[in-house]
Amino acid sequence: MLELSTLFSLIREMETPTLIALLHGPDQPGLVARVAGWIFERGGNILHADQHRDTEAGIFFQRVEWEPKDGDDSTDTAAFYTYAAALGMNARVLSSAQRARVALFVSKADHCFHDIVLRWKEGELHCDLVAVVSNHPDLKGIALGYGLPFHHIPVTAETRPAAEARQLALLQGLDIDLVVLARYMQVLSAEFLQKFRRPVINIHHSFLPAFAGGRPYHQAHARGVKLIGATAHYATRDLDEGPIIHQDVARVTHRHGVNDLVRKGRDLEKTVLAQAVRWHLEGRVLVYGNKTVVFD
Amino acid sequence: MLELSTLFSLIREMETPTLIALLHGPDQPGLVARVAGWIFERGGNILHADQHRDTEAGIFFQRVEWEPKDGDDSTDTAAFYTYAAALGMNARVLSSAQRARVALFVSKADHCFHDIVLRWKEGELHCDLVAVVSNHPDLKGIALGYGLPFHHIPVTAETRPAAEARQLALLQGLDIDLVVLARYMQVLSAEFLQKFRRPVINIHHSFLPAFAGGRPYHQAHARGVKLIGATAHYATRDLDEGPIIHQDVARVTHRHGVNDLVRKGRDLEKTVLAQAVRWHLEGRVLVYGNKTVVFD
Amino acid sequence: MLELSTLFSLIREMETPTLIALLHGPDQPGLVARVAGWIFERGGNILHADQHRDTEAGIFFQRVEWEPKDGDDSTDTAAFYTYAAALGMNARVLSSAQRARVALFVSKADHCFHDIVLRWKEGELHCDLVAVVSNHPDLKGIALGYGLPFHHIPVTAETRPAAEARQLALLQGLDIDLVVLARYMQVLSAEFLQKFRRPVINIHHSFLPAFAGGRPYHQAHARGVKLIGATAHYATRDLDEGPIIHQDVARVTHRHGVNDLVRKGRDLEKTVLAQAVRWHLEGRVLVYGNKTVVFD
Amino acid sequence: MLELSTLFSLIREMETPTLIALLHGPDQPGLVARVAGWIFERGGNILHADQHRDTEAGIFFQRVEWEPKDGDDSTDTAAFYTYAAALGMNARVLSSAQRARVALFVSKADHCFHDIVLRWKEGELHCDLVAVVSNHPDLKGIALGYGLPFHHIPVTAETRPAAEARQLALLQGLDIDLVVLARYMQVLSAEFLQKFRRPVINIHHSFLPAFAGGRPYHQAHARGVKLIGATAHYATRDLDEGPIIHQDVARVTHRHGVNDLVRKGRDLEKTVLAQAVRWHLEGRVLVYGNKTVVFD
Repeated sequence: MLELSTLFSLIREMETPTLIALLHGPDQPGLVARVAGWIFERGGNILHADQHRDTEAGIFFQRVEWEPKDGDDSTDTAAFYTYAAALGMNARVLSSAQRARVALFVSKADHCFHDIVLRWKEGELHCDLVAVVSNHPDLKGIALGYGLPFHHIPVTAETRPAAEARQLALLQGLDIDLVVLARYMQVLSAEFLQKFRRPVINIHHSFLPAFAGGRPYHQAHARGVKLIGATAHYATRDLDEGPIIHQDVARVTHRHGVNDLVRKGRDLEKTVLAQAVRWHLEGRVLVYGNKTVVFD
Repeated sequence: MLELSTLFSLIREMETPTLIALLHGPDQPGLVARVAGWIFERGGNILHADQHRDTEAGIFFQRVEWEPKDGDDSTDTAAFYTYAAALGMNARVLSSAQRARVALFVSKADHCFHDIVLRWKEGELHCDLVAVVSNHPDLKGIALGYGLPFHHIPVTAETRPAAEARQLALLQGLDIDLVVLARYMQVLSAEFLQKFRRPVINIHHSFLPAFAGGRPYHQAHARGVKLIGATAHYATRDLDEGPIIHQDVARVTHRHGVNDLVRKGRDLEKTVLAQAVRWHLEGRVLVYGNKTVVFD
Repeated sequence: MLELSTLFSLIREMETPTLIALLHGPDQPGLVARVAGWIFERGGNILHADQHRDTEAGIFFQRVEWEPKDGDDSTDTAAFYTYAAALGMNARVLSSAQRARVALFVSKADHCFHDIVLRWKEGELHCDLVAVVSNHPDLKGIALGYGLPFHHIPVTAETRPAAEARQLALLQGLDIDLVVLARYMQVLSAEFLQKFRRPVINIHHSFLPAFAGGRPYHQAHARGVKLIGATAHYATRDLDEGPIIHQDVARVTHRHGVNDLVRKGRDLEKTVLAQAVRWHLEGRVLVYGNKTVVFD
Repeated sequence: MLELSTLFSLIREMETPTLIALLHGPDQPGLVARVAGWIFERGGNILHADQHRDTEAGIFFQRVEWEPKDGDDSTDTAAFYTYAAALGMNARVLSSAQRARVALFVSKADHCFHDIVLRWKEGELHCDLVAVVSNHPDLKGIALGYGLPFHHIPVTAETRPAAEARQLALLQGLDIDLVVLARYMQVLSAEFLQKFRRPVINIHHSFLPAFAGGRPYHQAHARGVKLIGATAHYATRDLDEGPIIHQDVARVTHRHGVNDLVRKGRDLEKTVLAQAVRWHLEGRVLVYGNKTVVFD
């Protein structure tokens, strides 16, 4: 049976491809006009354009989406990188004809795993899920049931360097563009992140910066807070300190024990992670410094 | 004592004025580039630009904000209207150097009245509050305490046409740009709206389209809904049917009687109305058909 | 492999059973004391007790949960019914030792189906899922994959009476306590509901009473609302008019087309339906007239 | 002109007074039945009763509201304290016939001040506002305009002990039951709190425990969070560490500068503080350890 996600993919490929550029750099007059003019002169048609200025920092941010002339996305992509460099801007260009290759990292908890996979099958996530990686074998059956390759790479304190080397080799061999940590309970080392060099999205089960570190629901319960949260962020070498993509909260009362917080937290984790991944895949998230600009 | 709102006004006037254009019309290739190019060629600097396409209806929407060269807002305003017409687009241009003249219509309830006036004094609303109009004398003391002129124009079923004529003469004499119905419990006739020809924002105390008409909190209580709402919309000849600008809801339970719904509703009405008025004054609301595009 | 839901079930059965009584009837002095005294005198221990008075209607509502002496839930259950009748109160008594037998009705959309089943496997729903019933064969594979019996009963305008008779026979043969319409796109007839005589929970994909009837997301989009909603309610003979159990909303903007509303709606439908079913199974929902009291 | 708040007060005094008891202590079987039985035997009628058990800590919590026989609230109050002590429970009993005497502490910001006073005039807060205390003279005119006595007590690092002594003398002379810090920008010393011995409610302009300390909106902006919050809590000797009564959040994006966060924060601060004060005045907040149980 044809997966809905594959069907959507086919439909997209039949459509004219669109290009999405994320730009940022020193602000200067006329940037909007220049970029729009460049696209127009090459026969492209702008579908969406969204700008932001950080007036304090003097930085210009833009997301622009356009249909290139004759659907020639690769020529325009290369030319745009050159043009952006001439403007002194950082750029990242995505083509709708290219689907990001994604690896899911999981441990034992399966709620984010099911949620991401089901949304992907529903066509909500424009990507290819090409690998499930876990330090435990527990979710192997589910992964295979979904038709997803499952890679069991155990990790202990002693074997971490070797395990990370195996993970890296796997990711590079599969040409993975994005790693999603779907409640993967291990910390990725700074070395791993530096060598992988591509984005890693993590879901932290609290409203960061509150309750960083372990057992955040226990911390929240002990402090008696009235709201619990979840935070999706890019993983960086400083645990729980990476650029925040999305956050949400849910109300709790004295009636909720730690178990209820965990249950309510699962719902938050699912929706916050899925939203962050979707925004990332749609080229809506621009990172600068330790913050994000989300063009939603 | 100098009002904060006056101070903000003075500061703004010392700043370079900015222009905000709201555009909409038939979609065509190159619109973003053309508008940006037009501004750039005249020496202007685009601060924000936000576009939207209704692909089904084939309509293009844009909000663009720029600093005109040498702060000359009036020349650019006139020229932009001409340019937009040449593009076949509807346009509305606002200058930050011009403050909208606003009249508040009230009856007896004072919560939205206090809320709007206090936000205005805080500098949140870029306008001049030049008149308070009421069909009851109850809020006269408060209005005068705030230093606002109060106009008591009683309305009964028999005197409505004459009362509306007095209201119109007052609004036109004061050159009012916007009427805010801050829990004014009377319906404005289609004739009034047609003659006034400028926007009127109303706050309806329910989640429209549910519970249109009178006593919506009683209706909500009788139906046993679990959320109550408030809706800010432009007034049109069809009561409760005008373009919606903003809506919000609050959770209620069986423990809440009608009085509690009314109390919770007051908070919703205040925040929803204030937000709608602020968006309108900042040139963020574009009306087309019976809907709005809010560039927030 | 032992399902988590089965494990939770076993743990619960090893625990002392608790009884939950939902009471309502004419208010009278001393009801709280009488009920509490009755339980105490029989050696029971009240764990939770929550009361509500509708002072206008003069009705008293109570949810009380207790551990019966020596874990003898069946004797206390029978005795409580007698006692409540003597007080002139309507009562419904649930024992934690009894798991409700639930049938899921589905059509083609699978998001609520996956969501309910996965929560059940996670142990969030205290029930036995004993049947999946559908008018289409599409979800058969998924149901069987979850280890759930799947019953395909096609329904057309002509065959509806016969199809409903088959459904009824199935439900009665399986002694089903609760039917959950998880985006089952057919209307159940008044005759069906009258004969089944047990609760049926439906998820309606709008903020009722707004946008009742078909294609509510299209209606919402056409009206230009800024929030969309979902409503879980008990099915009654009047479509979309049954007692509301739970509602929630999500914010939408002009950027969201009908497809986005559908996608956002799926998330609402999942969480609203699951919450309503969970409250029902925990004996937290009391129906009176056309409204509910939810003791959350 | 008769204030609405005075009118509500008169109406309440004509009504039968009700008593509210907040109880907590070691859990033991039969507590609900005993308390209900005690009230019933004395001819009282329970209007509401809400219980909670912290099963881990083995603590029982209850809020019970009843009409005493013949409206005799003072006899029942005294008797209930004796009864609760015999049960080994801590108790606090409030009579609706007694209105709490409240002092508002303010500095220069007026948004929470206006909000609390206007809600009080609307009849939302069952108390007497008997004093406004400030370390700055700025809000004197507004306070007097509302008919509220204004006490200017300047505070500097050197004069703090003397200033706090003056504050204490004032509060004790006025028999103040509750101090509300409505954006009072000074820290109250541990000595002050120890000597005052009555509750002090503070509004902190962040989602505690994140961004404790000064300039929280700047901290939030620097960290790039996607939600900002406000927290109402009882003041304790450990700044920002007291028991949390209420919290709420608002969504922010990269488009919001620090000033926008401040503006959005004002709305949060108003509603969160007002809700916390209202719950406190209605006897809905029970403090134990460093947490609260809110019977809402």
